Amino acid sequence: MSDYIEIIDVSPRDGIQNERKILKTDIKLLLINRSLDAGIRRLEVTSFVNPKRVPQMVDAEAVAAGLSDQADARYIGLTLNRRGFDRAVAARLHEASFVVVASDTFNRRNQGVATKDSIAAFADVRATAPDTIDVGVTIGAAFGCPFEGEVPLPRLMHVVEACMAANPFELALADTIGVATPRDIAERVGAIRAAFPNVALRLHLHNTRNTGIANAWAGLEAGARSLDASFGGVGGCPFAPRATGNIAIEDLVYMLDRAGVKTNISLEKAINTATWLEKQLEKEVPGMVMKAGGFPTPVSA
Amino acid sequence: MSDYIEIIDVSPRDGIQNERKILKTDIKLLLINRSLDAGIRRLEVTSFVNPKRVPQMVDAEAVAAGLSDQADARYIGLTLNRRGFDRAVAARLHEASFVVVASDTFNRRNQGVATKDSIAAFADVRATAPDTIDVGVTIGAAFGCPFEGEVPLPRLMHVVEACMAANPFELALADTIGVATPRDIAERVGAIRAAFPNVALRLHLHNTRNTGIANAWAGLEAGARSLDASFGGVGGCPFAPRATGNIAIEDLVYMLDRAGVKTNISLEKAINTATWLEKQLEKEVPGMVMKAGGFPTPVSA
Repeated sequence: MSDYIEIIDVSPRDGIQNERKILKTDIKLLLINRSLDAGIRRLEVTSFVNPKRVPQMVDAEAVAAGLSDQADARYIGLTLNRRGFDRAVAARLHEASFVVVASDTFNRRNQGVATKDSIAAFADVRATAPDTIDVGVTIGAAFGCPFEGEVPLPRLMHVVEACMAANPFELALADTIGVATPRDIAERVGAIRAAFPNVALRLHLHNTRNTGIANAWAGLEAGARSLDASFGGVGGCPFAPRATGNIAIEDLVYMLDRAGVKTNISLEKAINTATWLEKQLEKEVPGMVMKAGGFPTPVSA
Repeated sequence: MSDYIEIIDVSPRDGIQNERKILKTDIKLLLINRSLDAGIRRLEVTSFVNPKRVPQMVDAEAVAAGLSDQADARYIGLTLNRRGFDRAVAARLHEASFVVVASDTFNRRNQGVATKDSIAAFADVRATAPDTIDVGVTIGAAFGCPFEGEVPLPRLMHVVEACMAANPFELALADTIGVATPRDIAERVGAIRAAFPNVALRLHLHNTRNTGIANAWAGLEAGARSLDASFGGVGGCPFAPRATGNIAIEDLVYMLDRAGVKTNISLEKAINTATWLEKQLEKEVPGMVMKAGGFPTPVSA
């Protein structure tokens, strides 16, 4: 098992995209800078989507324009189609993450076309991308679909193989609705690494059904290189209104620190940022270590 | 990895012991009967402790007297000393779980004597126990102590070995304050099974820092036979007032069902009981599957 794993902060995108409270651009930029200060080096900073559908992302270009010019920071924009991708290029982000949903029904609801059409759009974007931007792919609903239920492994592998044919610099598997278990992670990460031994594999997990941290650990064991997470575990799911969000950065860092796995992230700063974000959102967020604190220090008698 | 694991319901004891709202005896008995109806076969029904310190447990004898006489049900009482053990015997419970805390400071605060004195009391109780009751031991703070911080593995093993010398029918390791990670579970369960290959090993986990479900999975992988859990994840920790409680039975069952590990517990009934318990306690409980629902069923077009 690797003794290092990269944590990608998705707070500014998935973390807040379903929040009713629209954060001002300068608050989003503060969040991003706090994240960098805590040690995060890759962030999904925004998505280039239709603001009528995702009002929180209306200021994508303004966020991109305000990003600090930190040499080793990598900023990612989420895109669903050619139009969004071109916006990410124009905004000079380092990376675009192009979404292809493993189930047809969800792909149609999310981006208006069949999965095969999104794969074709991704291949086109990848083939024509300028050198200024790295193009990765995120496979949505890779462990289950809110409309179709099961996403069989052969179906997932069909979609993965079609995407890999376009040579993404990274492949992300997303448990979009938070249904995966450690067994699913081992099975699917294992199958993909068997087929593509050199793939840079990233996992996007949600803690909707309390399996998120267990899945993160299983992903580390199975050889994932990167884990998406958000401060405070923000990132509610529109398909489960009472459910929690992404896995919490600080909860992950607590576990990994104690288990001897490096992340280069400061637990203390991560907790402080989760607490700060909770105030900005004006609602209780699901992170647990921010409430319980880290490992206890000895109390003198 | 085993394809079956036993879940022990600790809702009526650890789950509610720190709740301000005192449940009536008949509500506790309803909870226990709902648990049996959901498929649970072993339950920690009460603790025989000082009601001035744990007011919720004032009716231990009344709960024991009201238990349904279901042939395959096993009722456990938690005890801290000879006095509590004798009450458990008199109450005709099937099992007593005798607590020994791995750290001296915590043992003194919890039961007024040093760890070695609790070990001696356990050995005495075990040696003189009537045939009517099985006597197990629970090692508290086995992964960390709120007062001393680290509980080094050699210290834990010293306590485990001293307890095993008294031949408990089961050994439970308790992450009393919810600090363990999957690495700790693998390390400590592995060390104990290496020293005592035939030990019936039980894990008592808390989700205080969001690692509870990951630890449960690690415990299954490491060869634990039984996992403690509570409906709705009730069971707050006095050392972390804003933190969550035990791991939730229904969250565990969701993961294990999806991963092909049998528990013989009905997920639907477990969710219903978690929802019912939430109403009895008049506060939101931390279980997640009760809020998100199970794996989605296909939506017809």
